[in-house]
Amino acid sequence: MNPTPRFEQLASELADVGRRFFERGWVLGTSGNFSAVIATRPLELCITPTAARKGDLTASDFLYADSRGRVRSPRGGKPSAETPLHLEVINARGAGAVLHTHSIWSTILSERYRNHKGLAIEGYEMLKGLDGVATHEHREWIPIVENDQNISKLAEQVKDVLAAEPASHAFLISGHGLYTWGRTIADAERHVEVLEFLLETLGRR
Amino acid sequence: MNPTPRFEQLASELADVGRRFFERGWVLGTSGNFSAVIATRPLELCITPTAARKGDLTASDFLYADSRGRVRSPRGGKPSAETPLHLEVINARGAGAVLHTHSIWSTILSERYRNHKGLAIEGYEMLKGLDGVATHEHREWIPIVENDQNISKLAEQVKDVLAAEPASHAFLISGHGLYTWGRTIADAERHVEVLEFLLETLGRR
Amino acid sequence: MNPTPRFEQLASELADVGRRFFERGWVLGTSGNFSAVIATRPLELCITPTAARKGDLTASDFLYADSRGRVRSPRGGKPSAETPLHLEVINARGAGAVLHTHSIWSTILSERYRNHKGLAIEGYEMLKGLDGVATHEHREWIPIVENDQNISKLAEQVKDVLAAEPASHAFLISGHGLYTWGRTIADAERHVEVLEFLLETLGRR
Amino acid sequence: MNPTPRFEQLASELADVGRRFFERGWVLGTSGNFSAVIATRPLELCITPTAARKGDLTASDFLYADSRGRVRSPRGGKPSAETPLHLEVINARGAGAVLHTHSIWSTILSERYRNHKGLAIEGYEMLKGLDGVATHEHREWIPIVENDQNISKLAEQVKDVLAAEPASHAFLISGHGLYTWGRTIADAERHVEVLEFLLETLGRR
Repeated sequence: MNPTPRFEQLASELADVGRRFFERGWVLGTSGNFSAVIATRPLELCITPTAARKGDLTASDFLYADSRGRVRSPRGGKPSAETPLHLEVINARGAGAVLHTHSIWSTILSERYRNHKGLAIEGYEMLKGLDGVATHEHREWIPIVENDQNISKLAEQVKDVLAAEPASHAFLISGHGLYTWGRTIADAERHVEVLEFLLETLGRR
Repeated sequence: MNPTPRFEQLASELADVGRRFFERGWVLGTSGNFSAVIATRPLELCITPTAARKGDLTASDFLYADSRGRVRSPRGGKPSAETPLHLEVINARGAGAVLHTHSIWSTILSERYRNHKGLAIEGYEMLKGLDGVATHEHREWIPIVENDQNISKLAEQVKDVLAAEPASHAFLISGHGLYTWGRTIADAERHVEVLEFLLETLGRR
Repeated sequence: MNPTPRFEQLASELADVGRRFFERGWVLGTSGNFSAVIATRPLELCITPTAARKGDLTASDFLYADSRGRVRSPRGGKPSAETPLHLEVINARGAGAVLHTHSIWSTILSERYRNHKGLAIEGYEMLKGLDGVATHEHREWIPIVENDQNISKLAEQVKDVLAAEPASHAFLISGHGLYTWGRTIADAERHVEVLEFLLETLGRR
Repeated sequence: MNPTPRFEQLASELADVGRRFFERGWVLGTSGNFSAVIATRPLELCITPTAARKGDLTASDFLYADSRGRVRSPRGGKPSAETPLHLEVINARGAGAVLHTHSIWSTILSERYRNHKGLAIEGYEMLKGLDGVATHEHREWIPIVENDQNISKLAEQVKDVLAAEPASHAFLISGHGLYTWGRTIADAERHVEVLEFLLETLGRR
């Protein structure tokens, strides 16, 4: 498939997200990966290529992938190794965009609460930045999935945790980072900002 | 009412404030809200719309509101849910601008000192950046108001605390963030910088 | 006196320093002040005006002052209240530029070591960024002066401490911030960066 | 030798790296130094001059040096005093670029683990940003070399540690900072970002 105006638009928005996250230190090295849904039935995905620096992306770096993560861009390329995790989130939540970041604080908390298989955040006004949350009294449970280099096994874990915790807006992978999503790229970016803020607050208090 | 040059000027200044605060991580997600007084008797207010990203605002995003927080902009729109708090501050202090931020450190301290219903800052030269303060020996009391999703009740609490603490330059809402104000937008922005500096110093020492 | 090319050059360099320090959070509010020597015998000084935001300065905001801190700019204006401290440093050290910053860490350390009337930094390679220091084994003593709103008394203290500690490259004022200097503005800025780095390292370790 | 297009290209890339590292506070003062290999047999090196500010570099500030660190630029100049360390890394690892940074956290950890002569990092997904590392279960050993102003002795220590730890991607010098490298400047920059992230995570947890 050749890039459509919608692909170009989403890729360009994701590239801007990458620049902002890089400046905040949330996607250092080549860490992090981003995707957005171009179309459903069949699913068409705009996704970051593997091993790219997230602060330098341009729209033309992004790839076209199908519902099984196979690249459909005419020039080929290899999508992020974690594409199956993006697909699980999209299938389970009907997300329009999935963003994965590696911040200092999400990494620290993903280890500190690893044995509890998750952490709860409660009592903060900032929680209202999460989709559908209307009060600071909301209790957000962020499950922690065990990291695994076998991406199929990791995707299986993610699938299970998304099914087991249908109200969660995000999950952590231990020693690895944060996944969150939203109906649009802007919603998903807001979720990253909200959750990174809350995790840093929890980590420092 | 149609935008006047004064509205445009204030909205444009507040948009610049938003960009600077966003860069420092003080208004992540869609947190924070800003207002400035266009005219008094009757009160006319320039205020941020609800749920906006504060780093991306342009002057045309701002709304015209009256003394009861009703929108008077020809295109309508919904002002920040916390407009009643801005109005309490303006009424109690004669402020020309009100700025509300959500930083990591103000959030942490708003919880750490919650049971004391406030915190005192004393002995810092930076205190002289607060309006009318001429010495580091000044003792600034920052009241902490209990967060409440019932905005009328929260506004009532704010009204009471502003009356009870007539010398305070700011207040915190527990688990929520900082409110401060000034005669002009520049004064209010200076107050945010001064208070965020002092709260971070207190939090880290 | 009317602005000369040399005044313009120094003022413009100091304005750039202000922007960089503001971005790093070292001169929030209207804190901090900067000066550079235009000429000696008689002394002519380019100095920040009182109460200015240091991130927004342009060359035309700076003032011309004489050896007693009196403004000689045709349009008048009021120099930083701490001008007498700048003059003491220039007289005692023959400095060409004096920079005063208010960072979180210098404030915290100025209180933590207040009873010791100073703090020692030793064993860091970064010390070699200080003028004349050739080894990390150098022991830098940073005296701490008690803050005082009586600027003449504070200047007297500074004069005494500069005489008592002729090898020191800087001093702290308790609860207030850092003063350092250099032969040129670039040297003084390097000293600020080196010392802020070392104070933060000391504060966090 | 006069600058070649390849020299210009490498110098320009290293200048960009300097700007990015300066913004993150990793090369404050005049700390840090960078090099890239122009040619091998005989070795030609593009290297930072001594005592330069790393945030302000332009391509024309860089120097041409030979395999013994002697400057070959027509206008002369003095390369970084630590050029012999760059040469040891290039010889031992066949690196195409060597980057040395001075961050707060690498400095703190270089002292905290000094008696252990190194520190281990294990269990983090971010480790996969290091060349040839395919799993978070990788254990990266970062040796710590004792700082020494005798650059020949320091280079000797570095040579020994590189031989003793052939799998290490970096080393620290106590109270001084981080050295890492890569086949290209981009690889070396990725290593700096990955290692600074991991060291800060270790330092804060």
